[in-house]
Amino acid sequence: MSDYDLVIVGAGSGNMIADHRFDDWRIAIVDAGPFGGTCLNRGCIPSKMYAHTGEVAATAADGPRLGVRTSYDGADWPAIRDRIMGRIDENAAGGRDGQAKRDNIDVVVGEARFTGPRTLTVDLEAGGERTLTADRVVLATGSRPVVPPIDGLEELGGADHGCVHTSDSIMRLDALPQRMAVVGGGYVGSEFADVFHSLGVEVLQVESAERLLSTQDREVADLFTASAAERWDVRLGTQLTRVEAAGDGAGGDGLRLHLDDGSTETVGVLLLATGRRPNSDRLDLDGTGIDVDDAGRIVVDAHQRATADGVWALGDASSPFPLKHVANHEARVVQHNLLHPDAPVETDHRFVPQAVFASPQVAAAGLTEEQAREEVADLVVGRAEYGATAHGWALEEDDRHGEATGHVVKLLADRATGLLVGAHLIGPQASVLIQPLLQAMALGTPVAGLARAQYWIHPALTEVLEGALLDLDEQLAG
Amino acid sequence: MSDYDLVIVGAGSGNMIADHRFDDWRIAIVDAGPFGGTCLNRGCIPSKMYAHTGEVAATAADGPRLGVRTSYDGADWPAIRDRIMGRIDENAAGGRDGQAKRDNIDVVVGEARFTGPRTLTVDLEAGGERTLTADRVVLATGSRPVVPPIDGLEELGGADHGCVHTSDSIMRLDALPQRMAVVGGGYVGSEFADVFHSLGVEVLQVESAERLLSTQDREVADLFTASAAERWDVRLGTQLTRVEAAGDGAGGDGLRLHLDDGSTETVGVLLLATGRRPNSDRLDLDGTGIDVDDAGRIVVDAHQRATADGVWALGDASSPFPLKHVANHEARVVQHNLLHPDAPVETDHRFVPQAVFASPQVAAAGLTEEQAREEVADLVVGRAEYGATAHGWALEEDDRHGEATGHVVKLLADRATGLLVGAHLIGPQASVLIQPLLQAMALGTPVAGLARAQYWIHPALTEVLEGALLDLDEQLAG
Repeated sequence: MSDYDLVIVGAGSGNMIADHRFDDWRIAIVDAGPFGGTCLNRGCIPSKMYAHTGEVAATAADGPRLGVRTSYDGADWPAIRDRIMGRIDENAAGGRDGQAKRDNIDVVVGEARFTGPRTLTVDLEAGGERTLTADRVVLATGSRPVVPPIDGLEELGGADHGCVHTSDSIMRLDALPQRMAVVGGGYVGSEFADVFHSLGVEVLQVESAERLLSTQDREVADLFTASAAERWDVRLGTQLTRVEAAGDGAGGDGLRLHLDDGSTETVGVLLLATGRRPNSDRLDLDGTGIDVDDAGRIVVDAHQRATADGVWALGDASSPFPLKHVANHEARVVQHNLLHPDAPVETDHRFVPQAVFASPQVAAAGLTEEQAREEVADLVVGRAEYGATAHGWALEEDDRHGEATGHVVKLLADRATGLLVGAHLIGPQASVLIQPLLQAMALGTPVAGLARAQYWIHPALTEVLEGALLDLDEQLAG
Repeated sequence: MSDYDLVIVGAGSGNMIADHRFDDWRIAIVDAGPFGGTCLNRGCIPSKMYAHTGEVAATAADGPRLGVRTSYDGADWPAIRDRIMGRIDENAAGGRDGQAKRDNIDVVVGEARFTGPRTLTVDLEAGGERTLTADRVVLATGSRPVVPPIDGLEELGGADHGCVHTSDSIMRLDALPQRMAVVGGGYVGSEFADVFHSLGVEVLQVESAERLLSTQDREVADLFTASAAERWDVRLGTQLTRVEAAGDGAGGDGLRLHLDDGSTETVGVLLLATGRRPNSDRLDLDGTGIDVDDAGRIVVDAHQRATADGVWALGDASSPFPLKHVANHEARVVQHNLLHPDAPVETDHRFVPQAVFASPQVAAAGLTEEQAREEVADLVVGRAEYGATAHGWALEEDDRHGEATGHVVKLLADRATGLLVGAHLIGPQASVLIQPLLQAMALGTPVAGLARAQYWIHPALTEVLEGALLDLDEQLAG
């Protein structure tokens, strides 16, 4: 007999599984880190708390344009950090304590690796090791930031050097630097560049591609890139080739960065945001029958089953969508399939939305226009600019007092099916505005007439959605 | 033969009707005021521009709580006013010029009154009068603020006194007063109280009912009232009984207000926001066969036809919902019915949403909980607080650093039909967050399972909707 009915490795989304329907299961939850995983401790949640704080600073700095004498005169960084991370740490501890109190659940703190079929040995944080056998294993081990190979970085100690950070450590800085470099133009790099810029740090962002957010719809990426480049120093098509300690090398003087555009820059902090990789490599999967793909993701079927019996995986460990709302969805699928093995459900990866919580915000789901032009024979594009709505005037989105922002809602529909195939929003509240579109996509609601079937409060920002849907109507009728 | 195929009286929503499908109609558009009506010139649009400006000031004043050294040090009122009203005036003029240029449209500037069946005499702004006959008449004459009977007010000249304002004039003040009184606790009074308070004016708001926003769901109204009372001086169950000039009576010293709570208050500005009435009384409707109800609204059927042949009405002139998005909807119904008299469509007054653009925002549609408890035999209530979501933490909505705001999404469903019957939101972005609910209500989408049918971006503010829908799911299953 196994020690446990179920062992869950990873207390991020994995920790959602063992609700009270599992009260008669013997369960172990294994994690070396704090409960809540990347999202709570080092990811989405605290980063959005910083994003809001940065937005308040930016709003105050920008007020005089509207005729209000507002100002931003610097950040009390320790107060911000302690406010945010204090809440995070309290929540993580509360999550662990809550599970540990339950009679049927053992919380095991340490790194787990396979030492046999459904047999895991944990290097305990408290010292020593412990081996657990289980009837079922769920791998929810997440991912971690990649530290790219850069000349000189390893000699400095990589991300252990006091001036070198990934998203794992950047939110716990001792002090704000005067100047920082962000390597990477994806959403992680761009969100942090925006926050630190808003708080008053001189930011240099380095991206090897020709635009920031390069996986987004081209138009959205270009608009975002142009906006960022107006606010901080963005170097596109550029790579960081070498890094060394500035000054006497003791670290107190920061880092000297050599870029392949020929420039040399000195910064107090270097943030590496060049991607993440699944933590599957730490599980000793060789010989377990649990397959991993070329990107290091555990291979799962539509029921989230791995290739070995009695093993499931979810979230960044296995998913092509390294997003918390997807991990949570997959966790619910695993949960259901554990409870109802004879009536398993499948994961739904259609229309997975994602957002970038910077200024401007970006939100998207489905195909980009470039993808849709390849895949959809009769593509219809509807669009509306924020500046063309009354609420957009309130936000000074149009060109009366400066340049128009160009913030836009762009909708892609397939004339053959009458359904949305993509939605791309860039501008204030994009992450909220996208929801009626997600609802329509998920429910298969035809877009023709959708604008006129419902009321849109005037003059709310939702009128930009109404405008884009009406434009789509006109194209569909034309 | 009549002079015109169509005369439209009122260039607010009425001005939307004559699009290019009417190019072979002879049309007159009559309005004494600027094009765009109340909404553009004296209502929703400029007031939301002020609301955003006030919000920026309030955000800057509140920043130190988050650890950013932001501040608000006063308003440059003339700059704000000229920025906002300059844009408004330009738009109104552009709207009139655009119509006047069209060959088939005459723009007639003046007050119209009936002098025969489908015969209108206009007191021209330029002097003299002109009589127009028409095959069809559309009455879109809107509404105006009520000036309540208050002792002493008429002697002062009513709303013509320099210190006495309604929403028609308050947005064009010469200067910000140090102190102002707002009479009325509805959305107009509350929005302006919020704006002027945010800009630094000492605000006294007087409301005869026991709460502000008293037509909203009780819980929402109570929460809003409590929040307002923390920020400015709110007098509930109180009436303004007498007003007189302060100081030497010349007006420069403002007004002395006598309240029935026994207090006397001196203010620089008095804003009367005690409701609006339809402008039907200015049309000389007696003997036209055009009926008016007790509230002064022109009586119309579901096709927006008035009780006299060839006469339609829409918007505040006739609607039980004095809201711009409803007037626009009704204008589209009239437009269709003019073009397609043999296939008329009906107005849809189900689930009319409305919002209050103050802090906190309020948005609602359908029944209040109090109404629903009367009308729905098996009522199910789902709710979620902003503070329980990750984005709510970013906005400091929970109680970790002060009191929880209590901002909430409350959903009402009828177990018998499985449909939403009401939605009530109070908190940031309520006017945007309500849209997926409006979409579900309008399309008759069952609420059971709606939360899980779609993705909700983590950690976007939409998770509070997801939470309320999940709570509803649980109640429906329980």
